[in-house]
Amino acid sequence: MRIAIDAMGGDHAPKSNVEGALAAAKEWSDVELLLVGDEAKLTPYMTTSPSNVRIIHAPDTIEADDEPVKAVRRKKEASMVVAGRMVREGEADCMISAGNTGALMTTGLLIVGRMNGVERPALAPMIPTMDGRGVLALDLGANMDAKPEHLAQYALMGSIYREKVHGMAKPRVGLLNVGTEAMKGNELTKQVYPLLAELPIQFVGNVEARDVLESTCDVLVCDGFAGNVMLKSLEGTASSLFGVLKREFTRTWYTKLAAAMLMPALKGLRKTMDYKEHGGAPLLGLNGLVIKAHGSSDARAVHNAVRQARLALQNDLIETISMGVGGTNSGK
Amino acid sequence: MRIAIDAMGGDHAPKSNVEGALAAAKEWSDVELLLVGDEAKLTPYMTTSPSNVRIIHAPDTIEADDEPVKAVRRKKEASMVVAGRMVREGEADCMISAGNTGALMTTGLLIVGRMNGVERPALAPMIPTMDGRGVLALDLGANMDAKPEHLAQYALMGSIYREKVHGMAKPRVGLLNVGTEAMKGNELTKQVYPLLAELPIQFVGNVEARDVLESTCDVLVCDGFAGNVMLKSLEGTASSLFGVLKREFTRTWYTKLAAAMLMPALKGLRKTMDYKEHGGAPLLGLNGLVIKAHGSSDARAVHNAVRQARLALQNDLIETISMGVGGTNSGK
Repeated sequence: MRIAIDAMGGDHAPKSNVEGALAAAKEWSDVELLLVGDEAKLTPYMTTSPSNVRIIHAPDTIEADDEPVKAVRRKKEASMVVAGRMVREGEADCMISAGNTGALMTTGLLIVGRMNGVERPALAPMIPTMDGRGVLALDLGANMDAKPEHLAQYALMGSIYREKVHGMAKPRVGLLNVGTEAMKGNELTKQVYPLLAELPIQFVGNVEARDVLESTCDVLVCDGFAGNVMLKSLEGTASSLFGVLKREFTRTWYTKLAAAMLMPALKGLRKTMDYKEHGGAPLLGLNGLVIKAHGSSDARAVHNAVRQARLALQNDLIETISMGVGGTNSGK
Repeated sequence: MRIAIDAMGGDHAPKSNVEGALAAAKEWSDVELLLVGDEAKLTPYMTTSPSNVRIIHAPDTIEADDEPVKAVRRKKEASMVVAGRMVREGEADCMISAGNTGALMTTGLLIVGRMNGVERPALAPMIPTMDGRGVLALDLGANMDAKPEHLAQYALMGSIYREKVHGMAKPRVGLLNVGTEAMKGNELTKQVYPLLAELPIQFVGNVEARDVLESTCDVLVCDGFAGNVMLKSLEGTASSLFGVLKREFTRTWYTKLAAAMLMPALKGLRKTMDYKEHGGAPLLGLNGLVIKAHGSSDARAVHNAVRQARLALQNDLIETISMGVGGTNSGK
């Protein structure tokens, strides 16, 4: 299987991407890694030359502050766009990028292309939970407004993803809502609820935002706006609380001493809450596998994204989603 | 000024309500407190008989698990409904209830009645922030779906509330959104943004959920669904984190000792994050003042809700909102 890596994307590019690719190439001989980027900038980091790593020269780069749609349309030789084109043309089975999120979603839509029958692809990151199990949440910002049918497809795609990539037999799918009763919510969730109940998934009903961290479901379905509000509330609260704890705990020598004694516990918790630990977020509903790695990805994160891509490809993720989406469409 | 208290509402009713009313009556001689409820159940807690406290007999009670609309329609002699009727008839200037939230919102709409020009009243609790300043957020669940004009009225009402009740000269009003740029968001927020920019308020633009706890605004405007997701994410994250901290900190004698040394700091933080500390939530946009006290209110919380109501009445909150709403309507 051939995995294209946007070598110029991310805060630590191209170093982290090249190093991560080299490590992955060493671990998995069945994977061919295509490093897409400016050859002159990549070569210095090529400390070894494994037979399953190739550089695909792409002279241009999409920057973090580029306007997504414009950048993808105009920078035809940018590493991200070239990687997307390789997936579309069948020259790569998957692409991984730690670059500009908006540009990657645009690349997915305009270059890789939507899967037949899918109107809105969804971005599906893992939200960390207190028990380490995690929740795949979608959509987390690819589409701000969604129709009921879109959320039903998110549910199906998310369920298949957890089954195929995380080996879960019956992922529990929940609908983000303001109460657990079936008739709770806004117009959108009220219309989505019966659609989810009809799908060939294990629908566990409405899930309140306060229970997400307690692993009450494995896949959480929401529109991009509500999902973004939820994720940023989680991150913001955790960050604010840790900030105050840090301030309080360093106030006197006495509290500093006590805090030092608790440091292992605090570090573990901080790590549990860090969504960067949970690997890349797939963009589901495209004609190929596209994985968004975190912007601050280091070599280990890139290596992990390759692991994730490999599992998805081995288990025919895209084909299964395509059949699943086709099945529900023809069944209506 | 006459303040009706739904004496039968809340987890600790009627005890907490009577005790809170007696304490408030003692502190403020310019307030007349009308305890609405079952006289036989209230009398045992009347340890003193101040001249500015009266019992208004209401034989029935709306329970926490009653279906809101049905309960308000059928239980015409319930303490909450009677208190609402007193506000409508001008026999009371305000009502306070710690009872069933949905029933209180229904009482507000059906019994007290909407203010002229307001289509959707909003529930506006304070969200605690790390600096203790707090954010008045509205709507937090009175209406799941909202139109742009509704959010514009929320902004105006919330700004007036913080000015009149909290004495803020120029409350900063923010719009809950997924990014800070003006054109970010879903259809709703994109349409709301220019409306807010035109209002006679200090509109500070979009506010991301991750920044709410850092006091970047004094009033946060959102639809009821997004607001609920945000509030419950904040509460859930804080609760999950404290749960894990507690578990980690009590694991060995060594961590227990260290945690004991940090207890004052931890307790202070827990208190900062406890939204019960921030008093009752006004229901804004009604023909009278209605305050929702937290279900678990104790006597001090009821006492505080009276303080809040007194400030609002002294500073002509309802009249000012009515003029404000009228002004923006006629200006269009």
